[in-house]
Amino acid sequence: MPELTNRQILLRRRPTGLVQPDDTELVTNPAPEPAEGEALLRTTYVGLDAAVRTWLDGQPGYLPPVELGDIIRAAGIGEVVASRCDAFAVGDVVTTLTGFQEYVIIRDDVFSTPIPGETNQLAIMSVYGPTGATAYFGMTDIGRPKQGETVVVSAASGAVGSVVGQIARIKGARAVGIAGGPDKCRYVTGELGFDACVDHRAADFPEQLKAACPKGVDVYFENVGVPVFDAVLPLFNPFARIPVCGLIAHYNAAELPPGPDHLPLLLRTILSRRLTFRGFLFFDYASQFPDFVTDMKAWLSEGRIKYREDITDGLENAPRELIRLLKGENFGKKIIRVSLDPTAPKQ
Amino acid sequence: MPELTNRQILLRRRPTGLVQPDDTELVTNPAPEPAEGEALLRTTYVGLDAAVRTWLDGQPGYLPPVELGDIIRAAGIGEVVASRCDAFAVGDVVTTLTGFQEYVIIRDDVFSTPIPGETNQLAIMSVYGPTGATAYFGMTDIGRPKQGETVVVSAASGAVGSVVGQIARIKGARAVGIAGGPDKCRYVTGELGFDACVDHRAADFPEQLKAACPKGVDVYFENVGVPVFDAVLPLFNPFARIPVCGLIAHYNAAELPPGPDHLPLLLRTILSRRLTFRGFLFFDYASQFPDFVTDMKAWLSEGRIKYREDITDGLENAPRELIRLLKGENFGKKIIRVSLDPTAPKQ
Repeated sequence: MPELTNRQILLRRRPTGLVQPDDTELVTNPAPEPAEGEALLRTTYVGLDAAVRTWLDGQPGYLPPVELGDIIRAAGIGEVVASRCDAFAVGDVVTTLTGFQEYVIIRDDVFSTPIPGETNQLAIMSVYGPTGATAYFGMTDIGRPKQGETVVVSAASGAVGSVVGQIARIKGARAVGIAGGPDKCRYVTGELGFDACVDHRAADFPEQLKAACPKGVDVYFENVGVPVFDAVLPLFNPFARIPVCGLIAHYNAAELPPGPDHLPLLLRTILSRRLTFRGFLFFDYASQFPDFVTDMKAWLSEGRIKYREDITDGLENAPRELIRLLKGENFGKKIIRVSLDPTAPKQ
Repeated sequence: MPELTNRQILLRRRPTGLVQPDDTELVTNPAPEPAEGEALLRTTYVGLDAAVRTWLDGQPGYLPPVELGDIIRAAGIGEVVASRCDAFAVGDVVTTLTGFQEYVIIRDDVFSTPIPGETNQLAIMSVYGPTGATAYFGMTDIGRPKQGETVVVSAASGAVGSVVGQIARIKGARAVGIAGGPDKCRYVTGELGFDACVDHRAADFPEQLKAACPKGVDVYFENVGVPVFDAVLPLFNPFARIPVCGLIAHYNAAELPPGPDHLPLLLRTILSRRLTFRGFLFFDYASQFPDFVTDMKAWLSEGRIKYREDITDGLENAPRELIRLLKGENFGKKIIRVSLDPTAPKQ
């Protein structure tokens, strides 16, 4: 194999609050050689989402923290360029935790999934990947909206929220989005077909949200955290469901924010309205992925699910784009194009 | 019918924080005459529990607030002494929302349940009433402990908590109680058969709780609120269940307590450990009451469920005893004996 260089972005310092450019470092190393039982993947795309931020703290979560000097973890997709294992052949398209790097060693484990017969790598990143699966399982297993109910989703123009609201509509529910700024709100109602979208930057945001939910809220897809939460809490109908999947507003917080303490109010509301809050991660539903892919393909072909990508070229831009995402400055599924994609639709 | 007097305790002033004796007033009125479709019940027992406090605030909850000048609402039991309806005959024993009064008008509605063939009114108040049903449905529908899992319950010597832990043991789980003071802790392990009980007043309470749960926590029966919560939160295993039924520590709070704000930490923990918090009220399970009664009768007869009553004579003492209960000074199911009970077991 010719000598391949592998650009990688490492964690140099644990961020306090928002990530700073100096917290990361771009290095160039020789690409690794696959050992027996391994394969080498050339990364095509890396997806950015708020979960990346949680892995940079030193605290254990559902995955171990990224250690100082390690490659920053992220979900991506690529093509196998060398293989010494049965699970992957050269040319296979595989989704895995590529991290912020051009080449990655993969093994036959739970994180690496070859994608049979599906050649559009961008669609896999956008709707068949972690964000689409998060929207799908959060709605079908926990939210379970019924005909005529009201579903509220924050970060409604984002990769998860946009699919959540469209699934709500497919299930016959009223979809109310929350987004930052008039452009995103117009996109959510105009392009994605939500029934309403409220700008959380508006001074009278709580009143606007209440007006958009005249029958109260039956499902709140918790995707942001406290600032929006305060406005939604009084609107919950009895027996409402709250799938908890992401908390962007808090990922940057180094310690508990100042008071007052909302915990008693939350617990009291959970009790008196008999709410269900349930946390979930898409990979808990691995056995149900075929249902997800079948439904999503049908919805896409019927034009009932639309999506938008926000693509930036060049691995070196991943830290800057991560910071923009955490500030809410992306618009659509944020993807870093790391190498040329032969499967991309022609523009 | 001879003229009957009816002593009643009214809400005179909305409590701020803990209830004060002056917030209530004892009055004497003629007992009401039942109209067509109504019956008159003589109250035998009134049960006190923390829910009573929530009804005294002006905020709407799962029931409307008690208005100023109204009788303080509480669940109780009594005997029909006059009837002008088909649903109840003179001599019937009926559970209902008697409130703090000696005589109450009842109708054939969801709150009034005649108790067929069950003559021990004290047992009905203690384990077949709202507190026993709360423990039962919270554990069988939400907590669902599996063999070998760990169940933690706060207020473990109380009417709900004591039954929760005993059901945990029946299901093959490890039962860990939390209670206030060594006497209650000894009762919880010695009499009720919990595997461990931790005193939340101990300086090293969090460490003691951790030591009592070497395999983490799979079910936390949320019965108290924040102070205990802080110690339990780090111990949750993935996919743990938290039935939310009572929050005594917060019922007295007039406004949000000072910070820091625990809400972000809670939501983050719900997400990363995939927790389920679900609020519930026993009367949501009305259709499943026969299962509850069948199971509870069997467990009582097998000696697998034990209970303790804390009885005070005289309606006039109800406000004082309510205050004691809210301070955690009762020991067992708190019951006010309002009139003589012909069904009481002979001492």
